[in-house]
Amino acid sequence: MNLANLERQLSFLREIDELKSVVRLTPLINQSRRENSAEHSWHLAMYALILSEHAAAPVDVVRVVKMLLIHDIVEIDAGDVPFHDPAARAGQAEREQEAAERIFSLLPEAQAAEFRALWAEFEAAESDDARFAKALDRFQPLLHNAATGGGSWVECKVTEEQAFARYRPPIERGAPALWEESARLICEHYGKSQPE
Amino acid sequence: MNLANLERQLSFLREIDELKSVVRLTPLINQSRRENSAEHSWHLAMYALILSEHAAAPVDVVRVVKMLLIHDIVEIDAGDVPFHDPAARAGQAEREQEAAERIFSLLPEAQAAEFRALWAEFEAAESDDARFAKALDRFQPLLHNAATGGGSWVECKVTEEQAFARYRPPIERGAPALWEESARLICEHYGKSQPE
Repeated sequence: MNLANLERQLSFLREIDELKSVVRLTPLINQSRRENSAEHSWHLAMYALILSEHAAAPVDVVRVVKMLLIHDIVEIDAGDVPFHDPAARAGQAEREQEAAERIFSLLPEAQAAEFRALWAEFEAAESDDARFAKALDRFQPLLHNAATGGGSWVECKVTEEQAFARYRPPIERGAPALWEESARLICEHYGKSQPE
Repeated sequence: MNLANLERQLSFLREIDELKSVVRLTPLINQSRRENSAEHSWHLAMYALILSEHAAAPVDVVRVVKMLLIHDIVEIDAGDVPFHDPAARAGQAEREQEAAERIFSLLPEAQAAEFRALWAEFEAAESDDARFAKALDRFQPLLHNAATGGGSWVECKVTEEQAFARYRPPIERGAPALWEESARLICEHYGKSQPE
C-alpha cells in the first residue's frame, strides 16, 4: 500500500462530500425539495447503466458512468448554473476549469490526470461516450419537470420553443430515441398532442 | 429501439428517485444535515473508483461500482436500518428481499435479473467484489463519524469495543489497508493514541 496515496485519496473523498450541498433547480419527483448535485450524479449513473442501448452510437458504459459520477464535482467551487439562465454562464467555463484543477489535484497524480481528462472530454461533448453522457444530463431533469407539472420550466418561464431549442440538440445527438420521448413529454406539458 | 423496454426502464428510473428521500443516521461532513441513501450511493461509487488498489484481492471495479450504485435501492420499501441498531434488523432481510423483487422487476427482464443477482451477491458478501463493496459501505460512514466529532457513534452511544466489533470484520476482510486507517480513527475518537 502507498500511504501517501491513501492520504490524498481520502482527502479528495472528504472534499467531494460538499457536492451534496450544491442544490439544483430541478425538483425531486415527489416534490419534497430540490435535487442536489451528488444525488443527481448517482441518478445519472443509473440512467447510463440502464439506457445505454438507446445511445446514438455504441458507447463504453463504464466510461460514461465514470464521466457522470464526476461531471458536476467542479460545482463545489463554481456552483450550479441553471440550464435556463444563459446569462449566468458568463465566466462559468473558467470557474469550472479552475475548480477541476484544484479539486482533482487533491488525488494522486495518475488518478487526477485521468479524472481531469474525463471531465474535459465530457465538457467537450465530442466523443460518442461524452455525447451520450450529455444527452442523459439533459434528459433526466426533463423527466423530472414533466413528472412535476413543469418544475423549472414553470419557475423559469421557459416557453415551448425555448424548451425545444435547449433540449433537442444535446439529447437528439446523443440518444435519438430519448429525444422522441422528450419531444412527446414537452408537447404534453405545453398542451399539444403531437411533436412539431 | 424497443419501446416497451424504454417504458419499463423509465418507470424504474422514476421510481428510484425515492432513494433520495431515504435518510440515514450519518451526518454530512459539514454537519448541515444527515446523508440520504442516493447521495451515499454516489459517494461509495467514487470510493470504489478511487480506492480499488486497497482491496484485499483484485476486484472488477466496474462490478463493484454497479453493486454500490444499486445496493441501497431496496431501502425505498424497507427503509434504512442503522448499523448501530441490531434489534431493528429483525425481519429486515425479508423486507429487503421483497423490495428487490418489486423494484428491480420494473425493469425489462434481462436487466432485472442482472440487478437482482448483483444485489444478492452484495448481500452475501462472499465474492471478492462484494467483500470490497461491503468494506467501503462500512468505511465511508466511519470516515464521516470521525470527521464530525463522533456522528452516529455519539448519537447511538456506541462504545469503542462495539465500534471495533462492528467495523473490523467487514473492513479488514475487504480492504485491510482501510482497516488500519479505520482503527487509527476509532482510537483517535475514543481517546487512545494507538490501535489495540
